[in-house]
Amino acid sequence: MAKEITSREENYSQWYNDIIKKAGLAENSPVRGCMVIKPTGFGIWENIKAQLDKMFKETGHVNAYFPLFIPKSFLSKEAEHVEGFAKECAVVTHHRLMNNPNGTGVVVDPSAKLEEELIVRPTSETIIWNTYKDWIKSYRDLPLLINQWANVVRWELRTRPFLRTAEFLWQEGHTAHATREEAIEEANMIHELYARFAEDYMAMPVIKGAKTANERFAGAEDTLTIEALMQDKKALQAGTSHFLGQNFAKAFDVKYSNKENKEEFVWATSWGVSTRLIGGLIMTHSDDEGLVLPPKLAPTQVVIVPIPKPAPNIMEVAEKIAKALKDKGITVKIDSDETKRPGFKFAEYEMKGIPVRIGIGNRDLEKNVVEVARRDTKEKTSVNLDGVSDYVVTLLDEIQNNLFQNALKFREDNTTIVDNFTDFKDALDSKGGFVVAHWDGTSETELKIKEETTATIRCIPNDAVEEDGKCVFSGKPSSKRVIFAKSY
Amino acid sequence: MAKEITSREENYSQWYNDIIKKAGLAENSPVRGCMVIKPTGFGIWENIKAQLDKMFKETGHVNAYFPLFIPKSFLSKEAEHVEGFAKECAVVTHHRLMNNPNGTGVVVDPSAKLEEELIVRPTSETIIWNTYKDWIKSYRDLPLLINQWANVVRWELRTRPFLRTAEFLWQEGHTAHATREEAIEEANMIHELYARFAEDYMAMPVIKGAKTANERFAGAEDTLTIEALMQDKKALQAGTSHFLGQNFAKAFDVKYSNKENKEEFVWATSWGVSTRLIGGLIMTHSDDEGLVLPPKLAPTQVVIVPIPKPAPNIMEVAEKIAKALKDKGITVKIDSDETKRPGFKFAEYEMKGIPVRIGIGNRDLEKNVVEVARRDTKEKTSVNLDGVSDYVVTLLDEIQNNLFQNALKFREDNTTIVDNFTDFKDALDSKGGFVVAHWDGTSETELKIKEETTATIRCIPNDAVEEDGKCVFSGKPSSKRVIFAKSY
Repeated sequence: MAKEITSREENYSQWYNDIIKKAGLAENSPVRGCMVIKPTGFGIWENIKAQLDKMFKETGHVNAYFPLFIPKSFLSKEAEHVEGFAKECAVVTHHRLMNNPNGTGVVVDPSAKLEEELIVRPTSETIIWNTYKDWIKSYRDLPLLINQWANVVRWELRTRPFLRTAEFLWQEGHTAHATREEAIEEANMIHELYARFAEDYMAMPVIKGAKTANERFAGAEDTLTIEALMQDKKALQAGTSHFLGQNFAKAFDVKYSNKENKEEFVWATSWGVSTRLIGGLIMTHSDDEGLVLPPKLAPTQVVIVPIPKPAPNIMEVAEKIAKALKDKGITVKIDSDETKRPGFKFAEYEMKGIPVRIGIGNRDLEKNVVEVARRDTKEKTSVNLDGVSDYVVTLLDEIQNNLFQNALKFREDNTTIVDNFTDFKDALDSKGGFVVAHWDGTSETELKIKEETTATIRCIPNDAVEEDGKCVFSGKPSSKRVIFAKSY
Repeated sequence: MAKEITSREENYSQWYNDIIKKAGLAENSPVRGCMVIKPTGFGIWENIKAQLDKMFKETGHVNAYFPLFIPKSFLSKEAEHVEGFAKECAVVTHHRLMNNPNGTGVVVDPSAKLEEELIVRPTSETIIWNTYKDWIKSYRDLPLLINQWANVVRWELRTRPFLRTAEFLWQEGHTAHATREEAIEEANMIHELYARFAEDYMAMPVIKGAKTANERFAGAEDTLTIEALMQDKKALQAGTSHFLGQNFAKAFDVKYSNKENKEEFVWATSWGVSTRLIGGLIMTHSDDEGLVLPPKLAPTQVVIVPIPKPAPNIMEVAEKIAKALKDKGITVKIDSDETKRPGFKFAEYEMKGIPVRIGIGNRDLEKNVVEVARRDTKEKTSVNLDGVSDYVVTLLDEIQNNLFQNALKFREDNTTIVDNFTDFKDALDSKGGFVVAHWDGTSETELKIKEETTATIRCIPNDAVEEDGKCVFSGKPSSKRVIFAKSY
């Protein structure tokens, strides 16, 4: 099977599509730009969702659900927001079909035209802030810490599974606060939470920083981002947390009376991550043999394969191991399908990225051992039957950690600090990856660099050192370095 | 607060709306027929979802995700399906907005008209069976047992929160099988699963049975239903499981090669429950003081209220009890808000349906006891501090069971067996509820009864006794009784 995957060197983009197809993660649907997320792909999303949901709840957030549709007029209420967002979207204009008078199929009933068109939500700030107007009256109603798990639609021209699709699944947090400081603190807290999730669960190292004015969310005063580096040395924006100031409160007239009984506008944040994370997961860890998944997010963590075939004594051992693993909270599958040979199964599970495979053979059993293979390094080890479940628990941790360390090393190897524009372009062209350089802080320079190189400023990193420097493009003074890269 | 709730006797429909508003479950949105599900209401849905999802997975199902949009032409492929479904729906005709040339707001860009209109899914049989065509080739690919948690839209004219909304949340299972028998077995198994969920978790007794041809799902050969009786003596269809025969397989040309390598059409089921269940939950248990929730689905199961105010020693006891309860897997909240008096809080938590309230007062503490109040009967008991967590665990079970028994008694008290049409009409008019009567099995009679009384056949119950009888309407022979009722 593995030979059906294009190698990364040959064609990274095709490799990505092959992985998604062969590992059964998703496929294109007959609706342009919309994908079908298959059970294995959806299983990864369920794990992502469960963990993030837990982290949101631990930090005081609750879930709610707002309408799929947004009245068209809402989008124009926040001026910057409509500029940045509203244009490419799905517009509902009618509410009824009728039988085609010519007798074939159905057509739109022209008499069922809506008075005001509805937009399928591309994001929900407007409908939510219109609702918050009624929910927030006094400082006692604040902070309001709400998250929504939902589907959203943006009519993208060029789509790629997970990375950019017309419909995608995401969570969007929308919080309201009494003070500027509290809202900024919330945006920062979620930024840290996203980074912790990316690193601890996805094993995907990220750089935390702020977007420049050009790259900010439409309607935000500040956009915080986590940026990861993919294997083809392009950056992926993996999650953003926005400080929205009072923009939406003013657009939707959301005020609260403070302790002195004085009316003030509310302060806001919004933040989201999406099924795009699955694209990042694939492009951070997988190899030419197939998908590689960090154990903490793998829908199946261990597969047990009897060799050469599932004889009764082998099945008994398999089930005993499976039970011991399940008791330790590990998801495990026994493959007792007799129509496929073990070699075929091994290749298939490598393709699907199951972190650990346990082979049980007759000769092994005589020696009271089983063969444990790890997906990341493909190493195999004979492990004594008595200690196999403890061994696997430790191994899963080791794989999780190893994947993170490899990705971190890859990022470090592909991060270049430059001090002039010749080196800047050279680093981008010959090496790719993150290029760390001084920038004069102007949108003008940023756009000129983008025009000339296609690279954008991924972020102004949180941990940038204050130092005297000169912008690589304009030579004007700069106080810290920012991260440039070509990106998804 | 309770006095703000209209009594059930005065106006049941207004009472229902008051409960939803005062308990903070949901509210209308600016989008016609679409509701906002508020955190408390959504918390109930999260509990429903978690439990059902567990039950689906335990019975071999996996989750996936299919597109929100369905190409218009798909709907016409299954003739009965389009007749029964496709008419009132949200139609996407354009994919772009543009700035209004007159400078105010945005308008639909006429140049961005879609070649084929897209329908926001009212249910997903068509798009899913179009996908299954590529997934199913051989008997080895069967059974295919997939579920989807999703939002769907049906452009309903009259909407009521939870019971009937334009957009609602649901799960839809779509399974494919090699034989007719296997598909029927699946539809039956899910039918049983729904009934078990309704009774064991929602504490809502249901009658299991089959729909008549008139009331079947559009495109189904058989529709199995669970029917519950609400407090106003109207029936609520709470979940349906459909045996679809080969209708969708034929419409979308989904065949598999069997073990003899012969091509055959696949057999199908689909099944779903929705946020409508929350409406059923409210109307089964709640009273004139507010919401009553079965403990197994209550987002907060226990609230602890210090009396008269949260003095340090009281808070210490409260936290100790809360910890002991949390350790037993119970969700608990301590209300230490000093701006509200205990009496106000008590009424508020009654309104919100928290199953158990623990009051901690200074005088009680001197006696080493706390006051435990149950929401269902409003009884209060002094409980020794040492045993309070065990007491609460038992009490929650007792409340769960009591709610079920009360609802069951209510249904039994409001079920009338009749043998002629005068008694039939009298039972419906004077008493309401379920009316159990012989029926001649024809759609003609069923429709005439509906016309004359507005009652429909809710189901042909699974446990109907075979007996010789005469149809209450036509006098023709009948072999078993069916259940009639007015319904939501």
